[in-house]
Amino acid sequence: MKRVAVLLSGSGVFDGAEVNEAVLTLLHISKQGASYQCFAPDTQQAQVINHLNGEESNDQRNVLEEAARIARGDVKPLNELDVAEFDALILPGGFGVAKNFCDFAFKGAEMMINEQVEQVGKAFKDAKKPAGYMCIAPVLLPYIYGEGVRVTIGNDADVAAAIGKMGGEHVDCGVRDIVVDEAHRLVTTPAYMLAENLPDAEAGISKLVEKVLYMAS
Amino acid sequence: MKRVAVLLSGSGVFDGAEVNEAVLTLLHISKQGASYQCFAPDTQQAQVINHLNGEESNDQRNVLEEAARIARGDVKPLNELDVAEFDALILPGGFGVAKNFCDFAFKGAEMMINEQVEQVGKAFKDAKKPAGYMCIAPVLLPYIYGEGVRVTIGNDADVAAAIGKMGGEHVDCGVRDIVVDEAHRLVTTPAYMLAENLPDAEAGISKLVEKVLYMAS
Repeated sequence: MKRVAVLLSGSGVFDGAEVNEAVLTLLHISKQGASYQCFAPDTQQAQVINHLNGEESNDQRNVLEEAARIARGDVKPLNELDVAEFDALILPGGFGVAKNFCDFAFKGAEMMINEQVEQVGKAFKDAKKPAGYMCIAPVLLPYIYGEGVRVTIGNDADVAAAIGKMGGEHVDCGVRDIVVDEAHRLVTTPAYMLAENLPDAEAGISKLVEKVLYMAS
Repeated sequence: MKRVAVLLSGSGVFDGAEVNEAVLTLLHISKQGASYQCFAPDTQQAQVINHLNGEESNDQRNVLEEAARIARGDVKPLNELDVAEFDALILPGGFGVAKNFCDFAFKGAEMMINEQVEQVGKAFKDAKKPAGYMCIAPVLLPYIYGEGVRVTIGNDADVAAAIGKMGGEHVDCGVRDIVVDEAHRLVTTPAYMLAENLPDAEAGISKLVEKVLYMAS
């Protein structure tokens, strides 16, 4: 059975992992006969957003503790992830990726990346193990894979330009489709960068999971 | 297009709505060609549980605001729910149902039910519109439908006995199956009262959604 490490950046689209993307990712890993373990960094969230009105709150929340809400408690600290124990890596999106895994949401192309996320991403790259990054998560890829990495975040011109500025090559892509960078063993899909409903998100995410698991054979 | 009102009790299995059940419910309502609107009561959660270690925290969280994390902000206060605008009602489970929608988690069969939840549940009953309750949510049904209502929460003997004490009839049921009370136009499924993985939960939830939508025709 193939084993997938899934990185969660909290729980909630505006300050954490996109909940629907995370659940659909875990669902399709299971339905396609693989197993998974969720991981998240044991750090404070960059922000806590009231998801009802979009306003920032004064609350402090921990990325690992909030990720546990999606994973029903079964999530490990990211610094315990040993690449040797897994065949592939998948990152759901959500603003948590752009706020907690890096500071793209605040700095754009001048962003810095969380050290643990960078280490884990590079460990899968160096081991030539496939990875899938969805939604906004591909903004991390120029940092991790270097110049020329081919990715999609859908068709948002500003984010695509920022990816280009960081050294990546952006490819426009529909919500139900994926972009594959065979050389880097990388799969990306727009998910909620474009999705207007759950079945559209599911279509792209299930394809991403299928391709990542195929590459992991 | 059939319209379903979905009641969320927060976001996170131990103090709110079970996230996976909620997402699978919304996914299958959409995939089966219906539309939905999420609702949650605008009240404080009974508890806030650290989902990593199970301990109660001193935080205060609002059920409606947390439910918005699952619904990407698109959730309305429960007191705005007009039964005339919907064809059916579905409640995902999670401890939020047993802590925020009633106090079953603390009082068992001596429980009281949240007034708004009771009103909404009875409004669907009185309008003879079908409803689906999953996981622990069927503990609400003796209160809403009265004596003799036929439901399942899987096979937990203590919860089943409590449902009996409150006047309901409990029927054991597997995780991938549903129990239908035709007279009351009610469908129940165990979901994470029994599920050990997402595909098992999905199987029962998709059947529940299908039956509820069929009854709503």
